[in-house]
Amino acid sequence: MKAGFYQFNPGFGKKEDNIRKVVSAVKNAEVDFLVLPEFFATGYQFISPDEVAELAEPVPDGYTTEALSELSSERKIFIAAGLPERHGDKFYNSAVLTGPQGFIGVYRKTHLFFEENLYFTPGDTGFKVWNTEIGRIGIMICFDWFFPEAMRSLALSGAEVVAHPSNLILPHCPDSMPVRSLENRVYAITANRTGIENRKAGQSLRFIGKSEIVSPKGEILVRAPEDEEVLMAAEIDPGTAKDKKLNPFNDLFKDRRPEYYKPLS
Amino acid sequence: MKAGFYQFNPGFGKKEDNIRKVVSAVKNAEVDFLVLPEFFATGYQFISPDEVAELAEPVPDGYTTEALSELSSERKIFIAAGLPERHGDKFYNSAVLTGPQGFIGVYRKTHLFFEENLYFTPGDTGFKVWNTEIGRIGIMICFDWFFPEAMRSLALSGAEVVAHPSNLILPHCPDSMPVRSLENRVYAITANRTGIENRKAGQSLRFIGKSEIVSPKGEILVRAPEDEEVLMAAEIDPGTAKDKKLNPFNDLFKDRRPEYYKPLS
Repeated sequence: MKAGFYQFNPGFGKKEDNIRKVVSAVKNAEVDFLVLPEFFATGYQFISPDEVAELAEPVPDGYTTEALSELSSERKIFIAAGLPERHGDKFYNSAVLTGPQGFIGVYRKTHLFFEENLYFTPGDTGFKVWNTEIGRIGIMICFDWFFPEAMRSLALSGAEVVAHPSNLILPHCPDSMPVRSLENRVYAITANRTGIENRKAGQSLRFIGKSEIVSPKGEILVRAPEDEEVLMAAEIDPGTAKDKKLNPFNDLFKDRRPEYYKPLS
Repeated sequence: MKAGFYQFNPGFGKKEDNIRKVVSAVKNAEVDFLVLPEFFATGYQFISPDEVAELAEPVPDGYTTEALSELSSERKIFIAAGLPERHGDKFYNSAVLTGPQGFIGVYRKTHLFFEENLYFTPGDTGFKVWNTEIGRIGIMICFDWFFPEAMRSLALSGAEVVAHPSNLILPHCPDSMPVRSLENRVYAITANRTGIENRKAGQSLRFIGKSEIVSPKGEILVRAPEDEEVLMAAEIDPGTAKDKKLNPFNDLFKDRRPEYYKPLS
């Protein structure tokens, strides 16, 4: 199957424009699974609780999730995409998975980055994996990558493909994802954004692009440039991610020895 | 303090020669802590249980550990080095830590690689950290690096410097250690060997060199060439590894959320 990402520069607060841009990019793309950036429809740099309250949406009954479900249904594709979620009186940095039949599930970011901590509640969903007709899909969001436990948890739960909606600012992730894929033998699709946001004095955020798809062997199958709006895709075979064998003597999951790992709490 | 590694090509079974080579290399080196490769005094490619039985030694009362203790004491340095250990009727792929006062402790490799599984018992020490006058030192051996839980366990146990005696054949480790250091904010010293061993028909092992010292921020402070016998060192400040802060909002250890990580067993 063909998996891809759409890397672009969302305008802050311009949901309709940003979603229209995605719809247009997908129009000519041949993909079965598409990953979009974190906060793809709203932009990233919130500077007040009011802004979050204004732009966050319920899931699945919100404007963005409904638009994604519709796009999934029309194009018969799966989509993983990030959005600010309102749930009761809480706000989460979330990502939804939609498919040809509509909404499938939501993941709420476990590890919040930087000033996200001012506006969002740390996620309470844990690392979820959905068994779909195109493979077992897990989601983690941006900074989650920094914690090896995130992708490990997804892989141990059976994820074959990890969708990774991102708004990367630090330089480390693109060259680190091959390690994450290698140690867990899963596919990873990082969809990052481009552009600069400087909505707050003294805090200009430059997003580094370099979205990429990495194979279970840690090979970078495709990588986007730093500053180009582009939809890229690669042929992937999620079933191969079930195989954790490195050689006739080593299986990366069977070789784990949890009794010797430092207790997690 | 100054930490270093000695990367060289040990002759198989030639313990005296190999140790003499180390002693000679250390003679003109200014280091406080030296890391030597896995199986540095025996060579790597065992091809029968009899060979293992012949070359393995008790710890600490064996020839190699005593030679290392003596060298540590004479030069007033700490040394971490790999050797095959005999313990009762079992054999381990071990590494010892010695210091100016002699033997300090032993670590037994948790994750055995390839045909090591034919000759050795998986380690039963867990990931240990020793509080020394030059900093808190942990040890993992070669293939252990592949499992993020290894270095994580050491770091969560307070390791500031991770000694990593290795005999690397696969290409991934040198470019992956910066990720290990970055995610745990600790120093890592990988001491690999050079050369080729082809003691078994159809199984030529080429060791990739590229020993390196990596900072808690994932910077490669020094890296050896692929095929050169060389002692290299870098000034390091182990205390800085206590600081897990990434920015005013994120502390890589406090931000961990073990309740959402997949159970380890």
